[in-house]
Amino acid sequence: MTESTAPETTDAAASVPAEVRVAVLGARGRMGSEAVQAVRRAEGLQLVAELGREDSLQALVAAGAEVVVDLTVPSATEANVRFAVEHGIHCVVGTTGWDAERLDRLEVLLAEHPGVGVLIAPNFSVGAVLAMRFSAQAARFFESVEIVELHHPDKVDAPSGTAARTAALVGEARRAAGVAPSPDATEHDPAGARGALVDDVRVHSVRLRGLVAHQETLLGGVGEQLTIRHDSFDRISFMTGVVLGVREVGSHPGLTHGLEGYLDLGL
Amino acid sequence: MTESTAPETTDAAASVPAEVRVAVLGARGRMGSEAVQAVRRAEGLQLVAELGREDSLQALVAAGAEVVVDLTVPSATEANVRFAVEHGIHCVVGTTGWDAERLDRLEVLLAEHPGVGVLIAPNFSVGAVLAMRFSAQAARFFESVEIVELHHPDKVDAPSGTAARTAALVGEARRAAGVAPSPDATEHDPAGARGALVDDVRVHSVRLRGLVAHQETLLGGVGEQLTIRHDSFDRISFMTGVVLGVREVGSHPGLTHGLEGYLDLGL
Amino acid sequence: MTESTAPETTDAAASVPAEVRVAVLGARGRMGSEAVQAVRRAEGLQLVAELGREDSLQALVAAGAEVVVDLTVPSATEANVRFAVEHGIHCVVGTTGWDAERLDRLEVLLAEHPGVGVLIAPNFSVGAVLAMRFSAQAARFFESVEIVELHHPDKVDAPSGTAARTAALVGEARRAAGVAPSPDATEHDPAGARGALVDDVRVHSVRLRGLVAHQETLLGGVGEQLTIRHDSFDRISFMTGVVLGVREVGSHPGLTHGLEGYLDLGL
Amino acid sequence: MTESTAPETTDAAASVPAEVRVAVLGARGRMGSEAVQAVRRAEGLQLVAELGREDSLQALVAAGAEVVVDLTVPSATEANVRFAVEHGIHCVVGTTGWDAERLDRLEVLLAEHPGVGVLIAPNFSVGAVLAMRFSAQAARFFESVEIVELHHPDKVDAPSGTAARTAALVGEARRAAGVAPSPDATEHDPAGARGALVDDVRVHSVRLRGLVAHQETLLGGVGEQLTIRHDSFDRISFMTGVVLGVREVGSHPGLTHGLEGYLDLGL
Repeated sequence: MTESTAPETTDAAASVPAEVRVAVLGARGRMGSEAVQAVRRAEGLQLVAELGREDSLQALVAAGAEVVVDLTVPSATEANVRFAVEHGIHCVVGTTGWDAERLDRLEVLLAEHPGVGVLIAPNFSVGAVLAMRFSAQAARFFESVEIVELHHPDKVDAPSGTAARTAALVGEARRAAGVAPSPDATEHDPAGARGALVDDVRVHSVRLRGLVAHQETLLGGVGEQLTIRHDSFDRISFMTGVVLGVREVGSHPGLTHGLEGYLDLGL
Repeated sequence: MTESTAPETTDAAASVPAEVRVAVLGARGRMGSEAVQAVRRAEGLQLVAELGREDSLQALVAAGAEVVVDLTVPSATEANVRFAVEHGIHCVVGTTGWDAERLDRLEVLLAEHPGVGVLIAPNFSVGAVLAMRFSAQAARFFESVEIVELHHPDKVDAPSGTAARTAALVGEARRAAGVAPSPDATEHDPAGARGALVDDVRVHSVRLRGLVAHQETLLGGVGEQLTIRHDSFDRISFMTGVVLGVREVGSHPGLTHGLEGYLDLGL
Repeated sequence: MTESTAPETTDAAASVPAEVRVAVLGARGRMGSEAVQAVRRAEGLQLVAELGREDSLQALVAAGAEVVVDLTVPSATEANVRFAVEHGIHCVVGTTGWDAERLDRLEVLLAEHPGVGVLIAPNFSVGAVLAMRFSAQAARFFESVEIVELHHPDKVDAPSGTAARTAALVGEARRAAGVAPSPDATEHDPAGARGALVDDVRVHSVRLRGLVAHQETLLGGVGEQLTIRHDSFDRISFMTGVVLGVREVGSHPGLTHGLEGYLDLGL
Repeated sequence: MTESTAPETTDAAASVPAEVRVAVLGARGRMGSEAVQAVRRAEGLQLVAELGREDSLQALVAAGAEVVVDLTVPSATEANVRFAVEHGIHCVVGTTGWDAERLDRLEVLLAEHPGVGVLIAPNFSVGAVLAMRFSAQAARFFESVEIVELHHPDKVDAPSGTAARTAALVGEARRAAGVAPSPDATEHDPAGARGALVDDVRVHSVRLRGLVAHQETLLGGVGEQLTIRHDSFDRISFMTGVVLGVREVGSHPGLTHGLEGYLDLGL
């Protein structure tokens, strides 16, 4: 474990806003090491601990962490988060494996620690989350909606999880508004060019060398088209969401599931 | 004036929702004649009057209009709307020329007729309005934002009014959130390739034969891009917004300025 | 039949290049009436006859036509073209139905009339033809190629004929160059999101209200992508190719199949 | 200098085509080290030497290099290439600084070594070179052409060199074909939204965090649009062109300027 210098500057810094003291769990992993650098670069944040698999969670307390970023593994994340909550430390969690049962147990614990905030986000890409949100919001105003997702050719699943989730949100929004499924006069499609039907929404999966992760929602009405496209060129883009989460978690007590809870779109 | 058949089916239709009785003013104009057709096609709407320049507004009353669509000229629109409001008829207005003074007078009148709704919309394209809204909402989450608008080459102004308005909304949202202007290291641009700076946002105007009216907001952060594009292929797309306005105006008493007031995006 | 004024201006016009005298067959049809207007608007062309179903082909001779544009029906086109060739009139043919047998018979006839040119083009959109050509030329330089075609939702076939033809040209170019099929690690695609496989090339068909006919060829290599997109917003775009054909057919004796034969891309 | 194992497998490999023996100059530089890896990965190529600044060119001869890749600096490249040509070694050169005088001297030298090939390419991105070529080829068939280039915001020049070169090629092709400049009715553009005019072609420069190097040529005619877009996500894409050059240089004796000379587009 690497412990950063103690915050001895409190007197001198009395007049400036104190920096948020952040610890990263899983700091040697691919995402964790990106998070370490992102916290270091971010204004107003101070990295106070980087913990790996063998490090004791007590180090969080010793370092005076106010927010912990958990980018570990499904088998470790629940114990990490419970420890933090019990010690009054806010959590930003990117690790998967949080099923309904775990979430329920966490809600119970948080009820006993009312000032503590936990953000559990399956997707930390602000752009991807916005693209999903906008797609769902716009879906009921257009006669037709289809989704095209484009990824590198080493991906084993089609469609992508994000595309399936977007289709589900779009389908739900249209059903709730009483909008009919997109019109489609196709009678002859012997080779399946029309793609997959997911929640009444057509999804097309392109695989192309050179790409990373990209998605377009195409919405069409008489005489017009609205396109919402997100391009993820590099996993580093997730760090924008991690830093946003670290900054906001202290003012969102309780459990927030999904980064969208922090994106106040201010209607 | 063409008056439609009277609503004699009330008894038989007692169990189904009554159709909204709609009149179109300026019915012989380009937009007005589109509106006539759009109302005829729309489910749940019944066209009860089509008025031209010489027709008496009394025909609105005689026809039992519940909603009037005003697509006339700046010199006529205020009198039309006042007549309608005084007779308890809701208004959907696409005519320009509503300056602050006119709007103030209308607010006073509406205060005396509390159940009546008026929608005045400078842009009836649902897609264009959503694209502007989404651009403004997303603007503060990205380091860079630029706008590219593309139109037919017979357009005399650059940038387009919609692009200038989008830039203003984007700039305002970024300033409100304390986001710095988009980074730009350009030192050498002798011919002005970087386009116009509108409210701290770069705007680029493309003119191309074959196009109608198109706009992209490009938002970029480290490792990712979000693109919101609207294509207007045909003015008929405005009719989606007109029909939406007609359907909603009855449940939005008072003055609403801008179609966005009716697009409940349900955060 | 409408016969245009006779060319009495020959003396006065001695010093300017004579206009090409053009007749349109099928002039009352949808495409034919567009062609009539396009010829009228085009510099250097003179419309001398517009023939419908009942008009005698002799009118072509009477009007002094030098080029005939055939936009009729499969059952009429062969007789029309044979008549024209026998009378020394060049032909630009957009009618379908020219199978191998008909083409063979036409070649025999043209051999007897060595100065006469015939262009038979299944697609008169210059942009679509260039997009196909460029896609095929670029195909062997990229590891991955996929095609996305987007049309209005009233289309009954998927994929579009143009997309299938592009896939065939791309597949052929790659096989000829010994390039392997595009990589694809997909193992799990229960709903068919990966689209159709046409000549070893993935083709995706989007159907969206508001669209007309659009196609993208996506070519990807390590670290880069090349995209060739064609948008057909209106059938009027075919007229650019018709006018090009009319201008060029006189200097291309014999049979040319496909507009690409006239697009000298000047390597 | 790192020397690879000698080619002792000649007997055993008698029936398979011998691998091309390749040396990289400037092997420790950013581009050079990418080239080292690319040659190692490429089928049919064998890396026999990696030379840095201090290494003697004699090592090329000792290693039996058949092709040398020069990715050094302007002050060194001419001497490197002359040495290689004098020793019968083909050259693929990505270093800048080859002005007319140097090229003339090289032509003289190559005339004395008729079997040796040299490729000097300012741009090794196959996609970028094809995009430029296709733009120029298509330019005369459309009424309007404009170029949009998009780069990261740390770029100091606008427009990009590739965009300026594309505009020059497009402008030249249009003038040669007698095509008028793109139509433009703009009367009012106080802030310069219409971008730069380069060789009669409008060029727009977008700068956006998250991007690398991207370019679109937009070609528009009545009712249609053709778009040619190239995305360069990573400099590694240049290696496709380097490897192509290494493979082809032996069969292209004399001087070739520009990768396009090797892209046989087989009209």
